[in-house]
Amino acid sequence: MALFLSLSLLSVPFAAEARIRHYKWEVKYEYKSQDCYKKLAITINGRTPGPTIEAQVNDTVVVELKNSLLTENVAIHWHGIRQKGTPWFDGTGGVTQCPIVPGDTFVYKFVVDRPGTYLYHAHYGLQREAGLNGMIRVSLPPGESEPYTYDHDRSILLTDWYHQSTYEQSTGLSSLPFVWVGEPQSLLIHGKGKFDCSTPGLKAGLCNATNPECSSPYVITVVPGKTYRLRIGSLTSLAALSFEIEGHNMTVVEADGHNVEPFVVKNLFIYSGETYSVLIKADQAPTRNYWAVSKIVSRESTTPNGLAIFNYYPNHPRRSPPTVPPVGPAWNDVASRLTQGEAMKARQGYILPPPQTSDRVIVMLNTQNEINGYRRWSVNNISYNLPDTPYLIAVKDRLNHVFDQTPPPDRYDSQNYDIFSKRNNTNATASSSIYKLQFNSTVDIILQNANTMIPNNSETHPWHLHGHDFWVIGYGQGKFDINSDPKKYNLVDPIMKNTVSVQPYGWTALRFVADNPGVWAFHCHIEAHFYLGMGVVFEEGVEMLGRYPTSITGCGDTKGYRRP
Amino acid sequence: MALFLSLSLLSVPFAAEARIRHYKWEVKYEYKSQDCYKKLAITINGRTPGPTIEAQVNDTVVVELKNSLLTENVAIHWHGIRQKGTPWFDGTGGVTQCPIVPGDTFVYKFVVDRPGTYLYHAHYGLQREAGLNGMIRVSLPPGESEPYTYDHDRSILLTDWYHQSTYEQSTGLSSLPFVWVGEPQSLLIHGKGKFDCSTPGLKAGLCNATNPECSSPYVITVVPGKTYRLRIGSLTSLAALSFEIEGHNMTVVEADGHNVEPFVVKNLFIYSGETYSVLIKADQAPTRNYWAVSKIVSRESTTPNGLAIFNYYPNHPRRSPPTVPPVGPAWNDVASRLTQGEAMKARQGYILPPPQTSDRVIVMLNTQNEINGYRRWSVNNISYNLPDTPYLIAVKDRLNHVFDQTPPPDRYDSQNYDIFSKRNNTNATASSSIYKLQFNSTVDIILQNANTMIPNNSETHPWHLHGHDFWVIGYGQGKFDINSDPKKYNLVDPIMKNTVSVQPYGWTALRFVADNPGVWAFHCHIEAHFYLGMGVVFEEGVEMLGRYPTSITGCGDTKGYRRP
Repeated sequence: MALFLSLSLLSVPFAAEARIRHYKWEVKYEYKSQDCYKKLAITINGRTPGPTIEAQVNDTVVVELKNSLLTENVAIHWHGIRQKGTPWFDGTGGVTQCPIVPGDTFVYKFVVDRPGTYLYHAHYGLQREAGLNGMIRVSLPPGESEPYTYDHDRSILLTDWYHQSTYEQSTGLSSLPFVWVGEPQSLLIHGKGKFDCSTPGLKAGLCNATNPECSSPYVITVVPGKTYRLRIGSLTSLAALSFEIEGHNMTVVEADGHNVEPFVVKNLFIYSGETYSVLIKADQAPTRNYWAVSKIVSRESTTPNGLAIFNYYPNHPRRSPPTVPPVGPAWNDVASRLTQGEAMKARQGYILPPPQTSDRVIVMLNTQNEINGYRRWSVNNISYNLPDTPYLIAVKDRLNHVFDQTPPPDRYDSQNYDIFSKRNNTNATASSSIYKLQFNSTVDIILQNANTMIPNNSETHPWHLHGHDFWVIGYGQGKFDINSDPKKYNLVDPIMKNTVSVQPYGWTALRFVADNPGVWAFHCHIEAHFYLGMGVVFEEGVEMLGRYPTSITGCGDTKGYRRP
Repeated sequence: MALFLSLSLLSVPFAAEARIRHYKWEVKYEYKSQDCYKKLAITINGRTPGPTIEAQVNDTVVVELKNSLLTENVAIHWHGIRQKGTPWFDGTGGVTQCPIVPGDTFVYKFVVDRPGTYLYHAHYGLQREAGLNGMIRVSLPPGESEPYTYDHDRSILLTDWYHQSTYEQSTGLSSLPFVWVGEPQSLLIHGKGKFDCSTPGLKAGLCNATNPECSSPYVITVVPGKTYRLRIGSLTSLAALSFEIEGHNMTVVEADGHNVEPFVVKNLFIYSGETYSVLIKADQAPTRNYWAVSKIVSRESTTPNGLAIFNYYPNHPRRSPPTVPPVGPAWNDVASRLTQGEAMKARQGYILPPPQTSDRVIVMLNTQNEINGYRRWSVNNISYNLPDTPYLIAVKDRLNHVFDQTPPPDRYDSQNYDIFSKRNNTNATASSSIYKLQFNSTVDIILQNANTMIPNNSETHPWHLHGHDFWVIGYGQGKFDINSDPKKYNLVDPIMKNTVSVQPYGWTALRFVADNPGVWAFHCHIEAHFYLGMGVVFEEGVEMLGRYPTSITGCGDTKGYRRP
């Protein structure tokens, strides 16, 4: 019965009256001092993070987005929303739409067809890390309930924060010699952090520790004895995080909109693009407050931990906990991170079993490379280049000249490639080619990690798939063996997600059904990695789509253009 | 004979073979240290100022412009080129085209139909001041010569330079409370300046006095005894300048592409958007170098003077002159500036007499105002607002909903307005309305200056007209009297220009013939003033135009759009 209920939510229009959730947003630059350092942030209606979108299953969300930036375009991706039937509103600049130019108002309109916790953020240039981000909460209709209970529902968004502008960062990334963006200056918890204004070398007048925007940390207030559902999303630019609340266990119950077979953690590892719901009972001594801490893992970072206050009512919300904040796990404790990944299973009674076989296996070697001396990231030695005309239009209207028609490879030379070494030949090829998937076929993706261009270094990459969820059917360390490893796949109760990480020198296997007509990006969610070419694009069933809205046109071949 | 020659150049296609001058430009951000302070500049093929366009009369200039900015659009205006028959290539974002989005390549193609010195620069947001600027030199065909002689021809572009980004500046200008951009940090002479790196409060690591980009000043090398034509253009963001070369007189011979009846100055006042040619004879003691100095006038500025070296060959070009640089005129010496303006007449034998009467007189009161508490600048109490769809397309295709159809006023309430006082009611109205001019009619514009919102303050505004030259027929101090002042107009030998200033508390009268089908901006050339609404738009004869290129579409109403 529970399974039936879940399936019905996924595929059948809900019988109760679906509503329109209408938002009017204005995007512009404003000076913000989120971590006490004053810099320009891209805001929505003056806020960063932007307003949380709250809707019920099968509601239609309408966001009327006015671009009030002076010279910059924008596009917003609704991260985790599959956009069934509305691939043109996925909000991915260069893939599903031309960007929204200053002065224009673009209307995103899509159905939120599943309950859960999702995200939204800019998907154009590096604008996401300029603060254009937020959360989406889709609730069950009245009378239906989650398979777990709680008293209150809260959300927090975790981010990292740079003091350099996105222009400064991207110019460095595109320079010879390459200038890496470096570690973020701060970690923000729902937009609040604290940078040390006594750091030497700052420009005078920009850092003010007493600014009310940052002088007190973010506060999560709880009533003793109550249980909280805390929805946690990460939209970091770079950082993989560990999040914990001092002295409190967390029971993981949701991941990327899917019910998880509950398991308990002391700290939650969360990668950029992921969401989790955890249950937390306020069951500790109620006479004090506790620290909530976000900490960078998988990199030996200089960034101080992000701190918030887990405030037991009626203690004063700004009262500092009497303890030193927990230090969190070691940054290089890969095993614990793998353990959490492997612990994540679909909840009993809510299992959507994957197809037991796949029609196609694409192995994707993730490497750091160079092209003409410029630093890049690549998949199977191809570093992606977005075309001027969005793929969705180019495919739909058969504008074959728009992008490279030679498909990218499904394999790398795994026999001869040593994933544990810095490769000898670092050159990659830039291409705009895409993977064409048979509609309704089942596709396996093996993300294969490798050494970077620095000896003895391999990084963690969170990969996000647009337009679909996938089953996470396997993780492993070292080189994936296409003969033996698939035998270990979990095809019984794998969790479904839209974002999953591949650990250093490891591999991750995922399976999805190409059942959503459109063109969909699949990419590393680290802002600089995507910028440097670490992504691919899938296309399926575009010929089944009706007419796309003209609002997505205006660039490349689509100036003064009507569809043929 | 000379008059005939001049007229023939202005109106008759030149018989010699006209050539195509083809330029391929890539626009992007690069780190530059032009005044020793490292910041992002918008460059053309890696340079700021960009390459000088060199052409002969009646050549066709083709600029293939690739926008390699990450998220920003761009548009380039060809300042002083009238664009007869090609109004869509005037390069004014929101007026004559949709901006060029990142990744797109836009082809500007226009005829340079008159000899002289012109400019080009970004005309979108505040991008001009980010370094996207340069010069255009149009020479006479071989065998023809200017009515003055010189041995060598040189060009320099004068600018001011801010360390804040255009985003930081514009965000301040659009904030409550208003944050003024302040005085520029440096004056650059052809892209080179020198900021004092020991200034307290700078961010560490950004200012380096030994950077080769700035460690030595710009050098103008001359051979003793020779005469130099020095073409001087100003594209300052804010500053009105005085330019002089220590110990050398300058004979003014050209202004904005027109021959000037020669007159001698010790220092040249030059406003943003103006060009001059001066003749300088290297007739001083040849054993040393001399200072060339640009200095801010009309504002009590804290910006240090810009310095270059006027190098007498064979002295070492970096050898400092043994003297203290000249201090230049007093910043508030309005009389000298007016004197220079009034001295500027058309050269005998090259006079193009203006029509002796006009069909319409538009008096434009220039005021500083507020709209809903936001600081603005206005003309006759209207602060312009660009529409989302460019005027040229909106007028041509009769998209009347695109902009306010009520024409702006031809007058202000001059009887009751005290131009010497801060006005009582500071509120202005924002509007996108335009002035429709009868084709081929003669129009007089009276620019009437007034007090700003600061008591006892009135500023200098350089006004630039797109698509036309105008005759400067009168200057005056105080309030223009429509009954008596026109009797003092110079209708005999007024100079023609495309940019002219109105001095504090003064007025300037200009006359032009509305003979160029198109839609044309007329605005204060101070970047922040134009941003804050100090401009108007003229339309004439658009119904006579053929089809515009689809390359100018893509924004507002012109997404997925074909002309009706």
